[in-house]
Amino acid sequence: MRVKHKPWAKEKLQNHPEVCILEPALHRGSWQKLFGNDHPIHIEIGSGKGRFVSGMAQAHPEINYIGIEVVESVLISALDKVLEQDLSNVLLLSVDGARLEDYFVQGEVARIYLNFSDPWPKKRHTKRRLTNPKFLDIYKNILEEAGDIHFKTDNRGLFEYSLQAFSEYGLRLTYVSLDLHNSDFEGNIQTEYEEKFSQKGFPIYRLEAQFNRESEKL
Amino acid sequence: MRVKHKPWAKEKLQNHPEVCILEPALHRGSWQKLFGNDHPIHIEIGSGKGRFVSGMAQAHPEINYIGIEVVESVLISALDKVLEQDLSNVLLLSVDGARLEDYFVQGEVARIYLNFSDPWPKKRHTKRRLTNPKFLDIYKNILEEAGDIHFKTDNRGLFEYSLQAFSEYGLRLTYVSLDLHNSDFEGNIQTEYEEKFSQKGFPIYRLEAQFNRESEKL
Ligand SMILES: C[S@@+](CC[C@H](N)C(=O)[O-])C[C@H]1O[C@@H](n2cnc3c(N)ncnc32)[C@H](O)[C@@H]1O
Ligand SMILES: C[S@@+](CC[C@H](N)C(=O)[O-])C[C@H]1O[C@@H](n2cnc3c(N)ncnc32)[C@H](O)[C@@H]1O
Repeated sequence: MRVKHKPWAKEKLQNHPEVCILEPALHRGSWQKLFGNDHPIHIEIGSGKGRFVSGMAQAHPEINYIGIEVVESVLISALDKVLEQDLSNVLLLSVDGARLEDYFVQGEVARIYLNFSDPWPKKRHTKRRLTNPKFLDIYKNILEEAGDIHFKTDNRGLFEYSLQAFSEYGLRLTYVSLDLHNSDFEGNIQTEYEEKFSQKGFPIYRLEAQFNRESEKL
Repeated sequence: MRVKHKPWAKEKLQNHPEVCILEPALHRGSWQKLFGNDHPIHIEIGSGKGRFVSGMAQAHPEINYIGIEVVESVLISALDKVLEQDLSNVLLLSVDGARLEDYFVQGEVARIYLNFSDPWPKKRHTKRRLTNPKFLDIYKNILEEAGDIHFKTDNRGLFEYSLQAFSEYGLRLTYVSLDLHNSDFEGNIQTEYEEKFSQKGFPIYRLEAQFNRESEKL
C-alpha cells in the first residue's frame, strides 16, 4: 500500500496503549486475559485501515479481534475507527505476520482472516505471499484444532496460487466463492480494498479452509 | 443438452463399429490392444459433439482417446468428426459415466477430461454432478497411480462445488485457472460449449487434480 510517511504515527499509537499493544510478546498465551473474557480470538493479518476488523468487532461482540498491520501509518486509521466506535473487543498490533509465533502460543487463535493480501505477482516473490507454505506452517501452529482461515481477494493470480498452495499443503476447502458479491454469502463486511476493486467490476474471490489434522492422527 | 431425437442415430453408430464400440465391456482391460499400441488412454466423459476429443486426438497422436457420451444423437456428431478427420486414435462409447468400472479395469486410464459437465444446480441433484464423491470413487478406481482429472467449465456454481468436493476427497489441485482464456495456458482446445459461453463473456474455469495416494501408503 502506498502511503504518506507519517512521522507522528508511532507517537499516536503509543498514546493509545489500551488498543495498540506495543509489546505483544508479553501477552503471548494470555490474550484472553488481556481482553478480560474467554471469547475466541480472531486475527486479521494485513488489516490496513481497519474497516473490516472494526466492522466485524461491532457485529460480533462475542469475539475478540486482533488487527495486525505492519505499516504504522496505515494502522493509525484503524486506531481512529476503534476509538470512534468505542470498541472494547479489538486490539491492534503493529507487527509482521511472519513473526506471529512470537506473539501467540499453539492453538491460541480460532480464526485467521486474510483480506486482499498483497499479491506479489512475480514468481521470485512467491515467498512473500501470505498464503505460501511458510506462512501456512505458522498459521497451523497458532490455530486451534478446528481453527480456520478465511481469505478474500480480488486478485485472480493470488487466488489461483492460494487454492493450489492450500491444496498442496493438505488444507481442506470448506467454502469457495468465485464471485462473493453475487453469491448468497451473508454478513460480508467489506474492506477498503474490496470496495475499491468491486466498484471497478472485478469479482471478489473468497474461501474458507481448515487444516486437515485427522490424517496426522492415523 | 437439448437435442432433436434422431431415431437413425443408433443405426449410424452401428454402421461404424471401428469407431463406436458397441459392447465396451468386452474390451475391459484390453483397450490398448484394441488401439493396437501401448499409448496412454485418456477419456472424456460427456464428450458431446466431439470437437474436443477429435481436436486433442489430432494434436496428440501419441495418446489414445476415448469419448464417452450417453446421448446417441449427440455422439453421432462426434462420429462425423472422427470420420472426416480420419483419426485412428479415437474411439467413442455411448455409455453412462457412472458405469465406467464395467468398461475399464483399475489403473487402465491415464487421464479423465470433464468439459462443461451438466451443472445440476439444484441441491437435490448434487449426486448427478460428474464431480461428486460417488464419481470420484469411480475415477480413482480406473485411473492409474499418477493419473489425473482435467476439468473445465463456465459454470461458477459447479466449479465452486467441485473445488470443495475435490478438496474434501483429498484430491490435490495441481493447476487452477479462473480465467482460462486470459491465462498463459497453452494448447487449449475449445469445446462447443466453451466457444458458446466464452463468446458471451463468461470466464472459463479450469483445474487439474490428482488423487493423493501417498497418504494411503503410510
Ligand atoms: C493490499 S492491503 C489490504 C488492506 C486491507 N486488508 C483491505 O482489504 O483493505 C495489504 C496490507 O497488508 C499489510 N501487510 C503486508 N504484509 C504484511 C505482514 N507480513 N504482516 C502484517 N501486515 C502486512 C500491508 O502493509 C497492507 O496494509
Ligand atoms: C453440457 S454438455 C457439454 C458437452 C461438451 N463436453 C462441450 O463442452 O461442448 C454435457 C454432455 O455430457 C453428457 N453427459 C451427461 N452425463 C453423462 C454421463 N453420466 N455419462 C456420459 N455422458 C454424460 C450429456 O449428454 C451432454 O452431452
